[in-house]
Amino acid sequence: MAEQAKSARAVIATASTQTKNSALLAIKEAMAASRLSILQANLKDLDAGRNQGLDAALLDRLELNDARIGGMIEGVEHIIALPDPVGEISRMARRPSGIEVGLMRQPLGVIGIIYESRPNVTIDAAALCLKSGNACVLRGGSEAFHSNQAIAACITTGLQAVGLPAACVQVAPTADRDFVGAMIGGDAPMCDVIIPRGGKGLIERISTDARVPVIKHLDGNCHVYVDAESDLQQALQILENAKTHRYGVCNAAESFLIHEDVAPTVLPLLQQTLAPHSVEIRGCERVCAMLPEAKVASESDWYEEYLGPIVAIKVVASVDEAIVHINTYGSHHTDAIVSTNYTTVRQFMRAVDSASVIANASTRFADGFEYGLGAEIGISTDRIHVRGPVGLEGLTNQKWIVFGDGQVRA
Amino acid sequence: MAEQAKSARAVIATASTQTKNSALLAIKEAMAASRLSILQANLKDLDAGRNQGLDAALLDRLELNDARIGGMIEGVEHIIALPDPVGEISRMARRPSGIEVGLMRQPLGVIGIIYESRPNVTIDAAALCLKSGNACVLRGGSEAFHSNQAIAACITTGLQAVGLPAACVQVAPTADRDFVGAMIGGDAPMCDVIIPRGGKGLIERISTDARVPVIKHLDGNCHVYVDAESDLQQALQILENAKTHRYGVCNAAESFLIHEDVAPTVLPLLQQTLAPHSVEIRGCERVCAMLPEAKVASESDWYEEYLGPIVAIKVVASVDEAIVHINTYGSHHTDAIVSTNYTTVRQFMRAVDSASVIANASTRFADGFEYGLGAEIGISTDRIHVRGPVGLEGLTNQKWIVFGDGQVRA
Repeated sequence: MAEQAKSARAVIATASTQTKNSALLAIKEAMAASRLSILQANLKDLDAGRNQGLDAALLDRLELNDARIGGMIEGVEHIIALPDPVGEISRMARRPSGIEVGLMRQPLGVIGIIYESRPNVTIDAAALCLKSGNACVLRGGSEAFHSNQAIAACITTGLQAVGLPAACVQVAPTADRDFVGAMIGGDAPMCDVIIPRGGKGLIERISTDARVPVIKHLDGNCHVYVDAESDLQQALQILENAKTHRYGVCNAAESFLIHEDVAPTVLPLLQQTLAPHSVEIRGCERVCAMLPEAKVASESDWYEEYLGPIVAIKVVASVDEAIVHINTYGSHHTDAIVSTNYTTVRQFMRAVDSASVIANASTRFADGFEYGLGAEIGISTDRIHVRGPVGLEGLTNQKWIVFGDGQVRA
Repeated sequence: MAEQAKSARAVIATASTQTKNSALLAIKEAMAASRLSILQANLKDLDAGRNQGLDAALLDRLELNDARIGGMIEGVEHIIALPDPVGEISRMARRPSGIEVGLMRQPLGVIGIIYESRPNVTIDAAALCLKSGNACVLRGGSEAFHSNQAIAACITTGLQAVGLPAACVQVAPTADRDFVGAMIGGDAPMCDVIIPRGGKGLIERISTDARVPVIKHLDGNCHVYVDAESDLQQALQILENAKTHRYGVCNAAESFLIHEDVAPTVLPLLQQTLAPHSVEIRGCERVCAMLPEAKVASESDWYEEYLGPIVAIKVVASVDEAIVHINTYGSHHTDAIVSTNYTTVRQFMRAVDSASVIANASTRFADGFEYGLGAEIGISTDRIHVRGPVGLEGLTNQKWIVFGDGQVRA
């Protein structure tokens, strides 16, 4: 498989946009024609999952139905419509030596994606890698094994229909754990880059063991800071949306920081706003003094990604204190300020060391679609390569190209 | 030191261009004022090196003199003159939701640089990290310990003169090997990113052990391919320059690929061209048939980075064969084509999977100065983050910035 991936890498890297889009179209059609076999395979996984006593949330993530297959097909259509990032040339300029130098966007190579129970990742990841000119090796969770194989069959059909090597997208033929080892480690890892998707445990394990670069996000401990100068209505709407719009997502807010000048006004109204959502408040001492129903936050609360109806709230004396708090306890994912002060907003945007820094909008906007990237394969909290939503461009890099007419170094 | 680096990181990341340039100016002046103490420290290292029986090449790399100190000072001046990459904002655009989204260039954090005998790396790396808003931890070779400490003293003087924390640039206080372990590994590595510079052994060891991302180059096995359609004089000049301009550098050519149509003409002239340089030719069977003095190349020669007056030459039947050879045996560093055919050049530029792909110029141009980046901290052959010469921009990344006026997700 490693050899096949390497030889497919060279083919897909230079495939034309038209070929890649035709393949995606053929994959989409194969999916539409195979709804029944995908659902049958999924039933096998669901039966096995029930027998193994998987919990309801996991079974829900695993389950496919007509609407979800429709969603996967729409996802492929969406990726067909996105511009091809490969081959984009930028910054060409003539140098004093007479050579012309610039950058050309290129695929990364063979991308390994290791994920858990959702079978839709199989098709989403395959389509994104294909469009960005990368070969990929996909290793889903053992609980979704049959569903993933049924989707893989559609992908193979589509690739072969346009004459691309089936090995452009390889789905792990086994649920065996050793397969992951071959993808990421040893003397010759199968993949050039690894993208783990799933729980923090999985991602930490993969990052520790990988001998190749990893693009990942660990935590989404996102903050909203409400400044002394801010629009109260805007602040409350943003706080409510950032916390309660969806709980289980990485760009939901987990902590609020409220400037002491406005805390006496904001906190009671915030409590009223959150009450219908039954959000539990864990506050610093000053918050608890103002909101008697709040629980006292412990040090660990400031680090916590609750992914549920709980929020940690702290009163701060200044934007500086907010920035230090966010950079210390945050996860460098997405953090927002609500402020009408020009200087304060500029300071916050510069100093907060996060993949997304937002002024006067909800943290929930940190998303590939909302940013205009189209589909995303994840949200990176890494410090190198790509931060924030990882779309097609995040699956590429730039090489230098040089044009001369015989120049040599003197 | 880890804690100091983290707190310095926050200060230097948001320091103004003027503050950073003033610090560099003060460092430069401290270096100029400390020539004597730097040379005395260097003498200690040289004496110790001679007693330990270091070879002449290593002693030469270690040695400082007035000219070399002058070169280091000029290097700092050059970095002062470069534009500050931090804070560059790009791609701001309004999205359908009404938010404005774009990218802001940011430092990487704490950069660890692990290098060998050349003391000039201490000042070059410090100046590049400082200008790009990064804190850094520098760990040079034990053989240059006193020289590095003397240079470090100048850096500290300069930082303190402008009120920046001395911990913006920390030089390892010990030649102890365990220090490297603390920089790159354990539960809380001191550095966010590691850049190893030195021999392949060092770089492989660091890459294997590091728990943080590594920006590196391993080999420079660079190729020049001479196409069937090419200017003979240009081809010979480029081949000569790429191989013989300097032998010990990573962008020197190590293999030539010659199209079979022109091999009978090119090879004898190439032999004549290389003869005054005493370059040993190791050829494929067809080369050896045409050049009886050539040695027969073994499979391992195609992978070799000789860094000396030896070249491996192969006759190929097509540009396709050349591309496959380069992508298979090459090191993805820098590869060149000599061709007058428009279509062939375009194919080569697209398909060669190297950090620099060059048409009709010497591989020796793959260099930060020649590309217009100014000083470089190395040349990356990685697949992610940055490929080719790593200048100030390669020491930064982009975060997303979002401006709204109260938007929430629907």
